Amino acid sequence: MRYAYRTGLTGSLIERADQIRISDEAVAEQCRSLRARLLKLADLDPELGPDGLLCWGSMADRPDGAELLFLGLDGDAPCFAPLIEEGQTPGMQAYAVWRQLDMMPPEEASTYAAARSLIEWHRGHLFCSRCGTRSRVTKAGWGRKCPACDAEHFPRVDPVVIMLAEYEGKALVGRQPRFPPDRYSALAGFVEPGEAIEEAVARELFEEAGVRAKEVRYLASQPWPFPNSLMMACIAPVEDDALTLDIEELEAAMWVSKEEVAASLAGAPDAPFIAPPHFAIAHTLLRAWVESDADKA
Amino acid sequence: MRYAYRTGLTGSLIERADQIRISDEAVAEQCRSLRARLLKLADLDPELGPDGLLCWGSMADRPDGAELLFLGLDGDAPCFAPLIEEGQTPGMQAYAVWRQLDMMPPEEASTYAAARSLIEWHRGHLFCSRCGTRSRVTKAGWGRKCPACDAEHFPRVDPVVIMLAEYEGKALVGRQPRFPPDRYSALAGFVEPGEAIEEAVARELFEEAGVRAKEVRYLASQPWPFPNSLMMACIAPVEDDALTLDIEELEAAMWVSKEEVAASLAGAPDAPFIAPPHFAIAHTLLRAWVESDADKA
Repeated sequence: MRYAYRTGLTGSLIERADQIRISDEAVAEQCRSLRARLLKLADLDPELGPDGLLCWGSMADRPDGAELLFLGLDGDAPCFAPLIEEGQTPGMQAYAVWRQLDMMPPEEASTYAAARSLIEWHRGHLFCSRCGTRSRVTKAGWGRKCPACDAEHFPRVDPVVIMLAEYEGKALVGRQPRFPPDRYSALAGFVEPGEAIEEAVARELFEEAGVRAKEVRYLASQPWPFPNSLMMACIAPVEDDALTLDIEELEAAMWVSKEEVAASLAGAPDAPFIAPPHFAIAHTLLRAWVESDADKA
Repeated sequence: MRYAYRTGLTGSLIERADQIRISDEAVAEQCRSLRARLLKLADLDPELGPDGLLCWGSMADRPDGAELLFLGLDGDAPCFAPLIEEGQTPGMQAYAVWRQLDMMPPEEASTYAAARSLIEWHRGHLFCSRCGTRSRVTKAGWGRKCPACDAEHFPRVDPVVIMLAEYEGKALVGRQPRFPPDRYSALAGFVEPGEAIEEAVARELFEEAGVRAKEVRYLASQPWPFPNSLMMACIAPVEDDALTLDIEELEAAMWVSKEEVAASLAGAPDAPFIAPPHFAIAHTLLRAWVESDADKA
């Protein structure tokens, strides 16, 4: 498939075989395959080869007490990950895994992202939200079911908008208090119930920076497994460049030119900020904006 | 704001005032405002005036035992909805509310969609998914918190792709077994953990109809409060028109021309199918496809 903008953490070579995961018998048959393999994880983080590729073991490596998560088929090889329901959920700390993602080809990061998101989802959803009873893994890791009230629960995916406001040839970048020093990025926020993507972009730009969107153009999307976001990148021409920052969300923000963003993406020593890493869609968004030949604002 | 494609259930005139809802004191002050008003609901369905407008009462109409959901500000009027935590969740039945949505201006349907999604989310999430304890409403209805483990829970929004496969000037429409007679629509499915929108479109088209996407173009989005979807409409040129249907998902599918879709959208008696209602993004998607001047496939 051709992508308009190729984002990181996409393009897994594993085909999610939904027709298998919905059948316990079909999953059991895949488990018994001599080609079956198990993703090597150190808790939630990947074990990597020197080339940034994921490491796989045999089904005999399954840790004690681990359920199996069926990731899908890589050609005729069934791919599983160990699903340890009880375990740490790391929260918003600085992740060591970011250094690993930096080395991984996007296809490998994509496979890993699905496994990580699912395992972390299970850990935060051991109990039925409808009645409070401990629920059980179903569909080879792609759901949970409550034995008391029969409610089915499916993995959560949180849509997030991430956007560049644009005004007279400049784009708006900001920094959250938790960012590493000198890092600036596109503004972002969760889509709320009852909102379109376009409305969430406009609301977040106004809430966080006090700027009013005139229109919203969607560019590209990417999964983000910390823990389970779907990032949707947009560009939004705005009415005015006067900023009113919500300092809880943004400790600083600035308008930058295409030349300045290009310098930051290139890691130039005199660049005005340190750009997000290449595997983050904010990087793709900044690059797409720099490379766009005309401002349509 | 200019929309590339105006979808139904968008454009609420109520500004979601996040700075108010995060403060119990600020919410209490809004409650005491003489301009405060309360959305009239019959369980989850709206009460409508003859013009399809939502009906509002005063804060004195608050039902016994109802929490308050702060929807935001309409000018200087604080808008609330009654949040009855225990109640029916209707599931996938044919909704009477669809006939009401048919009469409502999109701005009104947008306001209603946020309220309905939130109330239904609370009803399905009374218990902490992390530890099983009954949790409590926080942030004026925009979250829940567990008194035992302190976990915070935020309303769920499920991203869904809805797409027209396109091949040699024709588009693919299908019907799910639960559709009313002769209704056909765009294919659709939930975005899974670890997937981009574009990947979900490609996977769903292949799983449900056996067609392979060559590219994916995003068009527009819409909230869909049954119970909490974010619909994202795309067009996907595909490699071939040979269909292999997943008959669990689609009981029939067919390739239709722009003339045929135009006839269906117009409700012509000889149209090949009954189109989705005007307030559904599938309608917007079909209309946008008919009106696109060139097939870029």
